[in-house]
Amino acid sequence: MRTFECDYTEGAHPKILEALIRTNMEQMSGYGFDPYTGQAAEKIRAAIGVPVREVTFLTGGTQTNEVAIDLLLAPFEGAISPETGHINVHEAGAVEFTGHKVIALPQSSGVLDVDALEAYLADFYADATHEHMVRPGLVYLTHPTEYGTLYGKAQMQRIRALCDRYEMKLYVDGARLGYALGCPENELTLADLAALCDAFSIGGTKLGLLCGEAVVFTKEAPPHLMSQIKRHGALLAKGRVLGVQFDAMFTDGLYEAIGKEAIRHAHRIRDILAAKGYPFAWQSPTNQQFVLLDDREVESLKKHIGFDLWGRAAGGRWIVRFTSSWSTTDADVDELERALPYKTDL
Amino acid sequence: MRTFECDYTEGAHPKILEALIRTNMEQMSGYGFDPYTGQAAEKIRAAIGVPVREVTFLTGGTQTNEVAIDLLLAPFEGAISPETGHINVHEAGAVEFTGHKVIALPQSSGVLDVDALEAYLADFYADATHEHMVRPGLVYLTHPTEYGTLYGKAQMQRIRALCDRYEMKLYVDGARLGYALGCPENELTLADLAALCDAFSIGGTKLGLLCGEAVVFTKEAPPHLMSQIKRHGALLAKGRVLGVQFDAMFTDGLYEAIGKEAIRHAHRIRDILAAKGYPFAWQSPTNQQFVLLDDREVESLKKHIGFDLWGRAAGGRWIVRFTSSWSTTDADVDELERALPYKTDL
Amino acid sequence: MRTFECDYTEGAHPKILEALIRTNMEQMSGYGFDPYTGQAAEKIRAAIGVPVREVTFLTGGTQTNEVAIDLLLAPFEGAISPETGHINVHEAGAVEFTGHKVIALPQSSGVLDVDALEAYLADFYADATHEHMVRPGLVYLTHPTEYGTLYGKAQMQRIRALCDRYEMKLYVDGARLGYALGCPENELTLADLAALCDAFSIGGTKLGLLCGEAVVFTKEAPPHLMSQIKRHGALLAKGRVLGVQFDAMFTDGLYEAIGKEAIRHAHRIRDILAAKGYPFAWQSPTNQQFVLLDDREVESLKKHIGFDLWGRAAGGRWIVRFTSSWSTTDADVDELERALPYKTDL
Amino acid sequence: MRTFECDYTEGAHPKILEALIRTNMEQMSGYGFDPYTGQAAEKIRAAIGVPVREVTFLTGGTQTNEVAIDLLLAPFEGAISPETGHINVHEAGAVEFTGHKVIALPQSSGVLDVDALEAYLADFYADATHEHMVRPGLVYLTHPTEYGTLYGKAQMQRIRALCDRYEMKLYVDGARLGYALGCPENELTLADLAALCDAFSIGGTKLGLLCGEAVVFTKEAPPHLMSQIKRHGALLAKGRVLGVQFDAMFTDGLYEAIGKEAIRHAHRIRDILAAKGYPFAWQSPTNQQFVLLDDREVESLKKHIGFDLWGRAAGGRWIVRFTSSWSTTDADVDELERALPYKTDL
Repeated sequence: MRTFECDYTEGAHPKILEALIRTNMEQMSGYGFDPYTGQAAEKIRAAIGVPVREVTFLTGGTQTNEVAIDLLLAPFEGAISPETGHINVHEAGAVEFTGHKVIALPQSSGVLDVDALEAYLADFYADATHEHMVRPGLVYLTHPTEYGTLYGKAQMQRIRALCDRYEMKLYVDGARLGYALGCPENELTLADLAALCDAFSIGGTKLGLLCGEAVVFTKEAPPHLMSQIKRHGALLAKGRVLGVQFDAMFTDGLYEAIGKEAIRHAHRIRDILAAKGYPFAWQSPTNQQFVLLDDREVESLKKHIGFDLWGRAAGGRWIVRFTSSWSTTDADVDELERALPYKTDL
Repeated sequence: MRTFECDYTEGAHPKILEALIRTNMEQMSGYGFDPYTGQAAEKIRAAIGVPVREVTFLTGGTQTNEVAIDLLLAPFEGAISPETGHINVHEAGAVEFTGHKVIALPQSSGVLDVDALEAYLADFYADATHEHMVRPGLVYLTHPTEYGTLYGKAQMQRIRALCDRYEMKLYVDGARLGYALGCPENELTLADLAALCDAFSIGGTKLGLLCGEAVVFTKEAPPHLMSQIKRHGALLAKGRVLGVQFDAMFTDGLYEAIGKEAIRHAHRIRDILAAKGYPFAWQSPTNQQFVLLDDREVESLKKHIGFDLWGRAAGGRWIVRFTSSWSTTDADVDELERALPYKTDL
Repeated sequence: MRTFECDYTEGAHPKILEALIRTNMEQMSGYGFDPYTGQAAEKIRAAIGVPVREVTFLTGGTQTNEVAIDLLLAPFEGAISPETGHINVHEAGAVEFTGHKVIALPQSSGVLDVDALEAYLADFYADATHEHMVRPGLVYLTHPTEYGTLYGKAQMQRIRALCDRYEMKLYVDGARLGYALGCPENELTLADLAALCDAFSIGGTKLGLLCGEAVVFTKEAPPHLMSQIKRHGALLAKGRVLGVQFDAMFTDGLYEAIGKEAIRHAHRIRDILAAKGYPFAWQSPTNQQFVLLDDREVESLKKHIGFDLWGRAAGGRWIVRFTSSWSTTDADVDELERALPYKTDL
Repeated sequence: MRTFECDYTEGAHPKILEALIRTNMEQMSGYGFDPYTGQAAEKIRAAIGVPVREVTFLTGGTQTNEVAIDLLLAPFEGAISPETGHINVHEAGAVEFTGHKVIALPQSSGVLDVDALEAYLADFYADATHEHMVRPGLVYLTHPTEYGTLYGKAQMQRIRALCDRYEMKLYVDGARLGYALGCPENELTLADLAALCDAFSIGGTKLGLLCGEAVVFTKEAPPHLMSQIKRHGALLAKGRVLGVQFDAMFTDGLYEAIGKEAIRHAHRIRDILAAKGYPFAWQSPTNQQFVLLDDREVESLKKHIGFDLWGRAAGGRWIVRFTSSWSTTDADVDELERALPYKTDL
């Protein structure tokens, strides 16, 4: 039985795997000093289309957030995150492990409440005791969010303006960025992110790499970057593994194509769910679709198809997630369409 | 002009200072190996009245929380705190500095919402992804709270039961504990705290020491305690400075007397404020009294008496704090009574 | 031109790559909950041959040392390492990043001086001020060492006895362990390591994986292991990448065969170097061979073959390293034999 | 029986205590916003005599080193220290607690071997792998050293030149600085230290304060200094306790007088020890004098006078320390002269 539980249930996209196979016996220097890593960085710069200071590669998503945030912040600063942000909830305290407070602010469907951010910052600096408090040094966002939702361009510009006013960095976690870029509804290009953020990541793991995330530092390159990455236990000896994969991902528009195709499947899944009477938890334009089911319905649905029990909604019902990815095929979605009972038949 | 802004505006209680003077030229070993430190620990054990494992001495309040919490937690665990808890708001990220997340939960007038705690814990362990989240290892409370309010005994027992059920430690920050113990409304004795907590502090700084907080570990003593304290930069060479002061504080009931006397003054202050028409922000039975004034009233009041602008209330008015302490005299309160205008006259 | 500079210049051993290809489109759960990861752990347990408590998988060598040491130590303890140990020299301070001191002791050709260890420990505990010093909580060794040398069994037993006497853990970094096991001179089997150590790693990266190190905890499993790994930024979403590779590595004796074959090549390289008059920096029985050349000789040799400038010897000459690996073929060594000039001809 | 074991066996110098008494009931703001703290900083600036950027106050010596070094270094940098340096030996890993490696280099009688420093730095940057190693960001020295010895001006200038060449900070731990300044042999004034160092401390604890160390940042003030101090658990609520004491210490030349007087006593002690045939472990011009005795002699001497068993010398004999301090009187030294047997009579 096919599962739609998440976007990392398979290995690598065939073209990525092929690149690993093709280059496998080439002798190369370690630690990212291979030609593919350099080439991958160049291709990413080209895809971004505006100048950036540094492109580097890490292995996993939590690692990327931990390293990037620690390098962007002064040791005594904290990172603002929506309450539902990955660093605040699902990284086992990796940011605090590096000594930084995560300052959680209100959100709606995963999107930071910018009014709340503005009020928090005004209150913080109006408070005579704020030197006893953790200085907010960075705003952390995910795009798309953990809820599959997207920031609008005006929204992101407003956040950037607040970052400028209060001398903060802006960092966007793009673990699923490709699935935003593949969306018709998305307003933020790579060039926009480069213009608005101090750093952002381009996730590979969920887009079809065995592992790997790129990090783009747009304005300033952290000093002694390789050394700092190693200190965090995050430097791969065979840096080529990341370089070769990202090189393939940014060749001939593969990254873009993967995003678009997965979104096409996601929208079909959304339509199927709607047609069969499943109530959506919220509207998501990206590759994750969320519906609400009660316990009995979940048990019944389990016999037909694989999905993710994402969490409980306020009223007690399950939030059930269906995810498309780089590996989803039309046949998979056809299978879903056949296998999925009408909600009323559960 | 007399100020009532906080409870650490003077140096030391005369009897504490006298003890420092009397012992000043005695030659003693450093690092707490002097006779007074041992004696102070013994007297604190006697005051508690039930056996505890370890009593040690630190210099300041934030340091005490930082060290105690770091020693009570496994490195990967976090500390639950009311949103308004001192460690969450006013310690500049000292707990996160030691690698631990502060998990902020709802509160009311500074008191942790125990229903919210119970719900959080049930949800946490019901969540299939909880190994990706920070394990709550400890509940942090202040008694009295930052709002001057108190936990009831039943409330604290319920928190203890949750700590037992979910294998957490309970730590009470007693920076102002003496002002709780001096309150008729207080239900929690030192013996109760020893029975219910894994550790609690007995604040000296705000009760009349130049500096110094005692920490009581009730059930288990942290291994290599002196070494761990030194590693946190918290070991005094002249440990006697803490030992002599706490020895004096726990001689002839001084600690108890200070608390009672300050509460007597606080209740007079409360009555004066009420009589002159000042609206209370909330009810506090302890040495801090909070009233609400608008900006114009604050400016007007400043000409008459010293107080603390504690923060802004939801509606925008100032929360104005009046504090009694070990140093408050009847003459001081008389002066307040004379100097304080009727609210309508501001 | 072929290079012998190190043992991670190629990608993956063909059988490893084949396993990744074969399993690529299988849908599996993330974070190590896939069947291959479980199977790999079982096969490693079988290869060890005596019961151990936990086998887990990480991505890189420095990460493995950082995580394992941090999990084995109490927060206030330090790790003893030979001065030349990888954690002391070449991990950019990753162990100190987690708050632990590296206590460097004398060594000879990379092997910890056990007499010096014994003397250090006796002195430490004889010192009345030792509670002001960092308690040694663990001995860190590499096998083979950074110099390609090996510990004898009696030597390791003596270190274990000291660990027992002084309540320390023993951790062996096996980044190149396979090349020790493949050596006729090696006295320490996997079962011996399991009996003697509290934990040891089985390096995959240098033995033919794209990336991946196994960690074996022999006596106690760290609590909440997955959560702790994630906190260190070291948990892979697609845990299968490590599981599938290690599963293949421990199938049909591949790990053992790789080690043996590389050592056969290394010994041929050693003989060729000797026959052509190259003076050895020290005797290494494993896959790294070190000879001494002056600057002029190095420049001359560069035209003929690839090698590593490992460092400067005391007298100023270069220590030049030639390395065999899982990827070395007889044809490669034949090429070396042809290409390598007589030392006198440089 | 009088003890000469160390320079922190008594409380506070009478003039310091008097200042605490005199100001005790004055109402002042907390956290260093009292007038005495500001005044103390001004007087220290005046005593230094050349402009410096910031003077702040901390409570203890290890705390001072931990905070100052952490604030001077980038997170990924390490601190060079003589092997015998306090941060390397006797601070229980406080510097590593903040994530920084201590890089220990050779020394002689406590003084860093500047040739070894120069060679280490040249080798470090000549090493092609140095980005895998901890970048030295700071040189840590004590003046006087743990051995009571002193750096010469030319020596310190040479170290400063190396710091400039290799972009490192220079930090001098002046826990006993007053006893250097009181020495005829001392070549380094406060103005010299301000010119040569990026930061240095002026120890109060061992010079007659109950507790307290001043830290002088000469070139750059760390941002958000109070906040950073609080994050390290090092901010005193009653900052006045440090301010009042340092204000008194730098009034009417007290600091200078204390140092001079203690050195006068130390030199008498040195002469007495010499006259009675005690062999010196090494020559110390400052307030600590070290002689060598075997076990039997130590036991015998214990009956006559108090001293410190400082450690074992290479040959196995005890290094026995006699210390003068701010509290030493002529009568004390007379007593020592009477009580001390001839070495041959032990």
